[in-house]
Formats: sequence, structure tokens, C-alpha cells
Amino acid sequence: MELLELIKKRRSVRYYTDAEIEEDKLKKLVEAAIWAPSGHRIYAFDIVILQRKEDIRRIKAISPGIHGNPQVLIILCVDRQKAFDKAGEDGRDVLTIMDAAIAAQNICLVATEMGVGSCMIRHFDRVAAKGLLDLPENLIPELFVSLGYPRSIPEPPPRRVIEEVVIFWKR
Amino acid sequence: MELLELIKKRRSVRYYTDAEIEEDKLKKLVEAAIWAPSGHRIYAFDIVILQRKEDIRRIKAISPGIHGNPQVLIILCVDRQKAFDKAGEDGRDVLTIMDAAIAAQNICLVATEMGVGSCMIRHFDRVAAKGLLDLPENLIPELFVSLGYPRSIPEPPPRRVIEEVVIFWKR
Repeated sequence: MELLELIKKRRSVRYYTDAEIEEDKLKKLVEAAIWAPSGHRIYAFDIVILQRKEDIRRIKAISPGIHGNPQVLIILCVDRQKAFDKAGEDGRDVLTIMDAAIAAQNICLVATEMGVGSCMIRHFDRVAAKGLLDLPENLIPELFVSLGYPRSIPEPPPRRVIEEVVIFWKR
Repeated sequence: MELLELIKKRRSVRYYTDAEIEEDKLKKLVEAAIWAPSGHRIYAFDIVILQRKEDIRRIKAISPGIHGNPQVLIILCVDRQKAFDKAGEDGRDVLTIMDAAIAAQNICLVATEMGVGSCMIRHFDRVAAKGLLDLPENLIPELFVSLGYPRSIPEPPPRRVIEEVVIFWKR
């Protein structure tokens, strides 16, 4: 499939079947995240993978952004101090966020290609999540990706057309 | 090509040949950006495309992050007020940044598939860029993507392996 087609096919899928995602597929998703570009080559994120129902239930309880029933949660955690040491305030406050988002998009696109549903989630209690995950002091959970085989595929929200988005094209 | 392979093939390409990028390819890149997911469905970015040498030269002069010779600059501009109105402080300060980064990654991946080199650039004087681009009051340039046919393809920087990146895997 052409990539643009795949990009258009990606939906935010929140409701999943009970089918487990195979371990080799999860590893492929992690690899997709690892190969995301990193501003200033900070590479400041680590990953937590949750598959146990009880762990996911606890995270869901502090995450208004999780509406459905994730079979797996990939949690992108960033080391803001490492980012600051490598790239100053912009590194800490901007590049870490960009890196996490790009890694998450790689995950979601590769998931789509494998027939796995995915959804990025940013609306959660970060302090509570840090505690529940028992993260090392330096790490903050920045972005979740929920995963599972889709129970149904939602319709895409309406998108703007090129002429609306491109405000100046100087050629 | 499998997507993971394409993800690994993407490099930050900064030096380009003089060949022009075809307009239909540029439109495809904009479409890839449009189909990026948007946190809280803010869709708060607009795009400026620069192809004139003189315009690019002026932007380069205030952008330490541009090392090479972009043939085209796609400039992702965000409307922080619109984002705040739709999704509060997190929308303004986090989701706009994530959205721009995800859109840029879509652009870079589709560019790679088409044989076009690309590089994300965040290191530039945002106030000066806003002035040079004569952007509407509500828009701030958030992220650049430089584009062109690659003069050469750099080696990938070393990446971590799965076991280093995944700090907990609870299954």
C-alpha cells in the first residue's frame, strides 16, 4: 500500500477485541519508535509496555483520555533533565514532546499496516501515572499509545483541503 | 516496501541537488500533513511553502538549524490561541507541538518514499521568522521541513536496541 493511503487509513481506534497482540508485532512497534528522528539527537525517551489487565485498569482510572479497552499500553516516558543537559530549555520543553509524538506516530502507522488499532492519549494525570508505573526519578510519562485488534473502525473526522491549509505558497 | 523499512530508511538529509520537486509531490506532502492525527481535534496548524531562492535565503539567515541548501521549505505554523480555546493550556503548550511534529513526520516519511530528502528544523528565530513570513497575528512558525532531492544520504546515527529502550514490560 502506498504510504499516503496508509496515513489516511490510520484511525484513532479505542475499542478492541480480546485478541492478544503477538509479541513480535509489539517488538516491531518499539523498533518503529526507536527509529523516529530525535531533535538534537537527544533520544530522551524510554518505553513502558503494559499488557496485564490489572495494570491497564489502574492507569485507565487516572486517564480521562482512555475511553476504550486497551489490550496493550505503550507508554512513552521522557527524561527532561537529559534533554535539558543536551539541548537546553528547548530540548526539555519542546524537543522531548516532539520526539515522543513522532515516535507515537511511527507506532500508530506500523500498527495500522499490521491491522492493529491504535490511539494516542495525552489526557492523564502525569504525577499519578509516574507513581503507578514506579518510574525512575528522571522519567515522566509523556504520551500513551493504546493498542488492540479493532472491534470497529471509526469514520475519519473531516479534514481540511490543501487550499485551506496552505496559507502562502511562494513559487 | 514495508513501513518499518521505510522508517529506517528516512534520514535527515540537508544537502540537495538543484532539481526541483514536482508540484504534485509537494501537494502529496501537504496531504500527508493534513491527515496527521490532532490531539483533541484541534487542527491548529497552517502551512507556508517557500520555493523561491530569495525567500529561502532570508529564512536561512535567521535559522541556525538550517545547515544545507533547501530547495523547498514547508513551514508548519500553529495557532496557539485557537488551541487554547479548544483545549486549554495543554492544547496551547503541548498538543500544538505534538501535532506539528506528527505532521512533519508524515511529510518526511512520504518524502522518503518518493525519493525526496527531508529534514525537520526547530532551531530558528521564531519572532524573526514570523515577521519575514508576514504571518497573520495568530500564527507562530513552529517547525520547518526542508526538502530536496538528496545530493547524498547520510549514515544513520546509532540507535538504541529494544532492550535498552523498554525499561518495563509487564506481561
